[in-house]
Amino acid sequence: MTRTIVASATKEHVIGFDQPFTIIGERINPTNRKKLAEELENGIFDTVKADAIAQTQAGAHILDVNAGITAVDPNETEPPLLRAAVEAVQEVSDLPLCIDSSVTRALEAALEVARGRPLVNSVTGEEEKLESILPLVKKYDVPVVAICNDESGISEDPDVRFAVAKKIVERAADHGIPAHDIVVDPLVMPIGAMNSAGVQVFRLVRRLKEELGVNTTCGASNIGFGMPNRRVLTAHFIAMAASHGLTSAIMNPLHEEDMAAVFAANLLNGHDPDCRAWTARYRPAPAGEGSEREGRRRRRRRRG
Amino acid sequence: MTRTIVASATKEHVIGFDQPFTIIGERINPTNRKKLAEELENGIFDTVKADAIAQTQAGAHILDVNAGITAVDPNETEPPLLRAAVEAVQEVSDLPLCIDSSVTRALEAALEVARGRPLVNSVTGEEEKLESILPLVKKYDVPVVAICNDESGISEDPDVRFAVAKKIVERAADHGIPAHDIVVDPLVMPIGAMNSAGVQVFRLVRRLKEELGVNTTCGASNIGFGMPNRRVLTAHFIAMAASHGLTSAIMNPLHEEDMAAVFAANLLNGHDPDCRAWTARYRPAPAGEGSEREGRRRRRRRRG
Repeated sequence: MTRTIVASATKEHVIGFDQPFTIIGERINPTNRKKLAEELENGIFDTVKADAIAQTQAGAHILDVNAGITAVDPNETEPPLLRAAVEAVQEVSDLPLCIDSSVTRALEAALEVARGRPLVNSVTGEEEKLESILPLVKKYDVPVVAICNDESGISEDPDVRFAVAKKIVERAADHGIPAHDIVVDPLVMPIGAMNSAGVQVFRLVRRLKEELGVNTTCGASNIGFGMPNRRVLTAHFIAMAASHGLTSAIMNPLHEEDMAAVFAANLLNGHDPDCRAWTARYRPAPAGEGSEREGRRRRRRRRG
Repeated sequence: MTRTIVASATKEHVIGFDQPFTIIGERINPTNRKKLAEELENGIFDTVKADAIAQTQAGAHILDVNAGITAVDPNETEPPLLRAAVEAVQEVSDLPLCIDSSVTRALEAALEVARGRPLVNSVTGEEEKLESILPLVKKYDVPVVAICNDESGISEDPDVRFAVAKKIVERAADHGIPAHDIVVDPLVMPIGAMNSAGVQVFRLVRRLKEELGVNTTCGASNIGFGMPNRRVLTAHFIAMAASHGLTSAIMNPLHEEDMAAVFAANLLNGHDPDCRAWTARYRPAPAGEGSEREGRRRRRRRRG
C-alpha cells in the first residue's frame, strides 16, 4: 500500500489510500494577501506565525509555507526569506511542512533548516525542473509534489496530464526516488473556464491511483475560481474527489465547510472507524452544557 | 443512453446519466410525522397539499406520495387513501409523481388516477412482489423502483444486493419491461451501523451503471441515521454518490444543504452547461438590491 511519510522533528504523518484525508494548510502564502506580502518584504513573520498556529489548532496535518513575494530578483531574495519563514513556523508549530516555491535555490535553502521530512512543492515535467529538483529530493530523502505540466504548459487533455505524471514518476525512479515519495497534483482547472474540470480530476485521480499507485494532492479552491458560493463548491469538490482516490489537498483548514467535507469524506469512504472523528467533532453539547454554538466553542478550546 | 421517462399530465422528466441529478421530494410520507399521519387518518389533505406546493417551489423534479399510516388492515385502508392523496397532490402541483406503497392494491388504486407516467415505488426481489408488481408496471407502462432485497432480507454483502438487482431486471424483461424503466435502489445502510455503507453504495452505483446500465435512486438521509450534523453528512453523500453514477435520490428539497449538494454535483459532474444553474442560484444580489439574504428571498419569490 502506498504510504508517503511526511514528518516534523516530532510528528510523523502518513498520506495514503487507507488513511484519513490529508489536510495541507494553504494559508502561509502571500499571493493575494497584501498584509502578509508587506510583512515578508520587511522580514516580519507575525502573520506567518499566527497563520501557523491557527491552522494547527484547526486540524491541519501539514503546513504549506510559501514566501513568493514579487521581487526584482527572486533568486536572490526568496532563498533567505523562505528559510526564515520555515524557521518561524517551526518555532510555533510541530506539524510537518510543505516547502512551496518555484525557485529551486529557495527550496534548497529551506531544506537546509527544515526538520524531519518535509514535502517539497514542487517539481513539474519541465526538463530544467526535473534535473534541478529531483537531485535535491534525492539528496534530502524527502517526498515531492509533482505537477502535471511541462514545457508546453498545462494541457486541457487529461490523458496528456496523466502522461506528464507518468514521466515524472519514471524520471524520479531514475534518480532512485520511489513512487510512494511522489504526490501528484493533477492540476485543477476553474470550472467556470472548463465545464469538464471536475470530471477530469475525478478520472485523473482514479487513474493515478489505479495505474501509477501514487498519492495525489491539489489546490482545491481553484475549482471555484470566480464562482459565487465558492466555499460550498470547494467543499463538495474535496469530498467527491476524495471518494475517487484523492488523498490530500492544499486547502484552508479555517473554512468549516471544507473541514466538514473532509470529515464527511473520511466517514463515507470508510476511513473513520466507528464514526469516532465525526461524532467527536459534531456531537451536540450534553444537556446543561449550553447550545450547539457553545459546543463549538468548547471544541475549539479543546483542540487549542 | 439510459433514459427513464417520468411524466405528469403536462410535464415530462428524464432520469439519466447525461442529465442533471433528479430530486424526488420525500416529504409526503407520514412516517415519523404525527400531524400528517393524523390528517391522513381523518381524510384531511391540507399538509399533503402544502408539502406538494413547498417541494415544487423548492425545485423538486418528482414528488413521492406515501400514505402508509398504521392501520389494522392496510390492504383495506391504504388503497383509497393513497388514491385520494395522489388526487390531492395533482390538484396543486404539475410535477410527475412517485407512487410509494408496500401495498400492491394501493399502488393499483393510485395508478388508476395518476396522470401521465408516474414512477412506481417499489418492487423488490421477493417472488410475491415480482409477480404482483411487474404485471402492474407492464399494464400501465410505467417505470418502477427496484429495491435490492429479497425473501432473505437486506444482505450486508453488496455483491448479493447487485445480484438481486440483476434478477429484478431480468424478471422485468420477461414481463416485457425494458431496463431503462427500472430505477434500482441499492439500499443505503446507516453509516453508524456499518462503516462501509458509503463505499458500498459508491461501488454499487458504479456497477449498476456500468454492468446493468440502469438508473439508480436511494433514500439519501438513511446514511446519517442517528448521526450528529446529519444534514451535512447527507449532502456530501448525495454529491459523492452522484459522482459515482447515482442519478436520483428521494430527499428533502427544503434542505438547502442537500440542494446545494445537487447543484454542486451537477456542476462538477459536467451537467451544468456554462455553470448556468449554479450561478443563477447563487449569484450575489446586484449592487443596490440589498444583502445576500435579500438575494435569497428574491430567489425564493422568483421560483415560487
